Amino acid sequence: MDEKIKQLRESLAEIMDLSFTAALLSWDQQTYMPPAGAEARGNQLALLGRLVHERATSPELGKLLDELKAIAASLDPDSDDARLVKVTTRGYEKAVRVPTKHVMEMAQATTLGQQAWMEARSKSDFSIFRPHLEKIITLVQEYASYFPNVECPYDALMDDFEPNMKTTDVKAIFDGLRPKQVELIKAIAGKPQVDDSFLHQPFDEQKQWDFGKEVITRFGYDWNRGRQDKAPHPFTTEFGINDVRITTRVAPNFLNTMLFGTMHECGHALYGLGVAPELERTGLEGGASLAVHESQSRMWENLVGRSFPFWQYFYPRLQETFPQLAGIPLEKFYKGINKVQPSLIRVEADEATYNLHIMLRLEMEIAMLEGKVAVKDLPDLWNSKMQDYLGVTPPGDDKGVLQDIHWSGGSIGYFSTYALGNLISVQLWEKINQDIPDLVEQIRQGKFEALLGWLHEKIHRHGAKFEPQELVQKVTGSKIDPAPYLRYLTKKYSEIYNI
Amino acid sequence: MDEKIKQLRESLAEIMDLSFTAALLSWDQQTYMPPAGAEARGNQLALLGRLVHERATSPELGKLLDELKAIAASLDPDSDDARLVKVTTRGYEKAVRVPTKHVMEMAQATTLGQQAWMEARSKSDFSIFRPHLEKIITLVQEYASYFPNVECPYDALMDDFEPNMKTTDVKAIFDGLRPKQVELIKAIAGKPQVDDSFLHQPFDEQKQWDFGKEVITRFGYDWNRGRQDKAPHPFTTEFGINDVRITTRVAPNFLNTMLFGTMHECGHALYGLGVAPELERTGLEGGASLAVHESQSRMWENLVGRSFPFWQYFYPRLQETFPQLAGIPLEKFYKGINKVQPSLIRVEADEATYNLHIMLRLEMEIAMLEGKVAVKDLPDLWNSKMQDYLGVTPPGDDKGVLQDIHWSGGSIGYFSTYALGNLISVQLWEKINQDIPDLVEQIRQGKFEALLGWLHEKIHRHGAKFEPQELVQKVTGSKIDPAPYLRYLTKKYSEIYNI
Repeated sequence: MDEKIKQLRESLAEIMDLSFTAALLSWDQQTYMPPAGAEARGNQLALLGRLVHERATSPELGKLLDELKAIAASLDPDSDDARLVKVTTRGYEKAVRVPTKHVMEMAQATTLGQQAWMEARSKSDFSIFRPHLEKIITLVQEYASYFPNVECPYDALMDDFEPNMKTTDVKAIFDGLRPKQVELIKAIAGKPQVDDSFLHQPFDEQKQWDFGKEVITRFGYDWNRGRQDKAPHPFTTEFGINDVRITTRVAPNFLNTMLFGTMHECGHALYGLGVAPELERTGLEGGASLAVHESQSRMWENLVGRSFPFWQYFYPRLQETFPQLAGIPLEKFYKGINKVQPSLIRVEADEATYNLHIMLRLEMEIAMLEGKVAVKDLPDLWNSKMQDYLGVTPPGDDKGVLQDIHWSGGSIGYFSTYALGNLISVQLWEKINQDIPDLVEQIRQGKFEALLGWLHEKIHRHGAKFEPQELVQKVTGSKIDPAPYLRYLTKKYSEIYNI
Repeated sequence: MDEKIKQLRESLAEIMDLSFTAALLSWDQQTYMPPAGAEARGNQLALLGRLVHERATSPELGKLLDELKAIAASLDPDSDDARLVKVTTRGYEKAVRVPTKHVMEMAQATTLGQQAWMEARSKSDFSIFRPHLEKIITLVQEYASYFPNVECPYDALMDDFEPNMKTTDVKAIFDGLRPKQVELIKAIAGKPQVDDSFLHQPFDEQKQWDFGKEVITRFGYDWNRGRQDKAPHPFTTEFGINDVRITTRVAPNFLNTMLFGTMHECGHALYGLGVAPELERTGLEGGASLAVHESQSRMWENLVGRSFPFWQYFYPRLQETFPQLAGIPLEKFYKGINKVQPSLIRVEADEATYNLHIMLRLEMEIAMLEGKVAVKDLPDLWNSKMQDYLGVTPPGDDKGVLQDIHWSGGSIGYFSTYALGNLISVQLWEKINQDIPDLVEQIRQGKFEALLGWLHEKIHRHGAKFEPQELVQKVTGSKIDPAPYLRYLTKKYSEIYNI
């Protein structure tokens, strides 16, 4: 290995060891930390953040990357080393444009902002959060201004989550999606509603927990390289490619929370566990983008976990675990877990309505960034858009504009990745079904090795080597495209609702 | 506050934030980390260790401490700031004497050494560990050589655990203790043995866990500032003075493991939780020394937890929890938990024999350091000394020279602190009983506020401001003294064994 490449890998290893350490501080904070430990934890996280930032923007790293340009040009452009130089250079050049002062101000504003948001949401009082969000939006506008060479300012934000994704492209994708999804929801609304009352009853929490573990063990989650803990807001995190942990939440009176949450997080974890060992401690072990990551979680949650063949295998086991489901036939259960109903809360939305929640947020974020809507007017705008898109109006801001944590953490440009992830998941799914013609039959038998193997080979092992559009193109032959998702939704819900 | 003192506190805060972070990495490693995460964790811990070492030995810190000498001289010598300068300077001057190369070599040797020790112990095969211990002893000898201005080389080692404690003093203390303890053990051996068979039977693990929690909750352990998890080798750790966690182990067929282990670790934790907030993030929040720390754990475990009045309060509750104890009277239970029997394993030893295990180790460590015994001869030496001291001989090295982890981690000079802790605990206990005349009656009623308050006031809040001998003198009026411990042992066991 070239000496300079070796130096680069050593620098990145240190940055990643610090990042993984910070991730553990954060995991502990959300799982086990006693309440009074929060202040000290804040100090520790701030220090680790500073140490990472210092290293990630150091002149030495910049010089090294400069020197590596020529070397990388002589390599196979898809080789690990060439991609390592490319991706690291890209991140470096972004990071050094942002003054340290801005990084510190943002860290402070979002720490205070998240506290204020929590209080505001619990009291359903937007005025508590408003001044903090105003400050955060000002800082986000400032951040965008450090990247003047973009088509529109929102591109600079989105790029942090979806490398090289353009706002106009996302808008075009969503424009292709929206009328068809609205049409489908209307058609469903004209049909008799399915019954899911049996999902809303007491389910023993330990048995739920154990059932979820059984499912993801069959998916191929490796307990030697991961674990599951409880957290109020489930997430997946990693401290190396051999320690990728999930968290889940168990609702005592509703089965879906644990069931689909566990499969969702497992989907993320299988991605992290599938990255090639050569990419560990390089910064490339984290996945291509948030959307590609979400395509994995949504695939296991929805395309596998909410499918009929999946439950042909697992439903008898679920009924054995929960005898209260004995009288509910499989078909009824399947319809129940796929019930479509326009609702207020994004994270509880079904597959047919979910993307509309995202489109609403995208429009509002662009308007905020461009100064076309004032923070004080957000609640009203939110409520009127909810009425337009989904025909529902929040009874209070806690179920409206205050429901998501993202803005309080300064994450503007993030939401679209959820919807893009849905689209990518079905694009991949169509391709997988071509490559593994008996996939449905395998799932019916509770077998997932071939599926996981395909994902490892085509997606996981590459880590962040490829940009999301590049990867999707490489694997499916086309860029991110809403058509497969629409085909999937239409077919699935036409059957369920007899449209 | 003086500007230079402020600078010092800022430097120390960063060092402590890194140290607390490393402690979390280690806590997780011993509680929840999936097995395959070990390699990455090793990298993370090594990095954090290096970052702490760099800062703790930086020329900037040295210069600052030089400048602070004059300022500190003008302050009350017992003030926080004066002590902060003194203690930090002491640590700095020790740390800079040790070349970084040596620190790295020791880190590597002990990482490999601990792995080898684990394998050697599990196979009861000293030869696996021998070359590693030889390397470690060579490094420890080298370490001691960096401190030539000591009376004997072992002083340099012990000083890392017991600031300013001299080998000759410890030897003198042990010389005063040994014959009396041996005499007592012989007297006990001449009497009919007490029955503790009822402690060796199945006890529901969850009920054990809950009972332990009930006890330490009454002790005053604050669950808002701590938590308890399971670990194979219980320990207490802290990530700030408001996050001090304990771990415990539950044996399914023996009550003592959980019972006294939980109280022991709680004793350590109450110390950490009682340090004055002004000392947080200074390096002075860690307690005066290992012996003083051990005096706290042993006090709650033995002087409180193995006392008759304690069980007058708790035994009815224990019987309620475990109906299998219904037929065992309190007096019999009390004798059972205080059974004296010379045995092989230090951590399972009773109060009367425990210190002899320590004396044996001290003699062997000094002989190793001074090159008077070769590593290859350790097993035989161990076994013959066990016969001399306790009249028992290990059937294999796993129950002999391989039983403790300390040497594999390079911790030579550590063991004495356990015995010193026992002595200090009783010295303090005599003083506390003078200051709180109805303490016994309070314990009989399950009340511990006055005891904990006394410890906070006299011991805990000072953190590491005072050296151990200085603190013991300050609180009890004399230096570390074996007499109170001997009085205590003699009285307690004369009653139990009718001597």
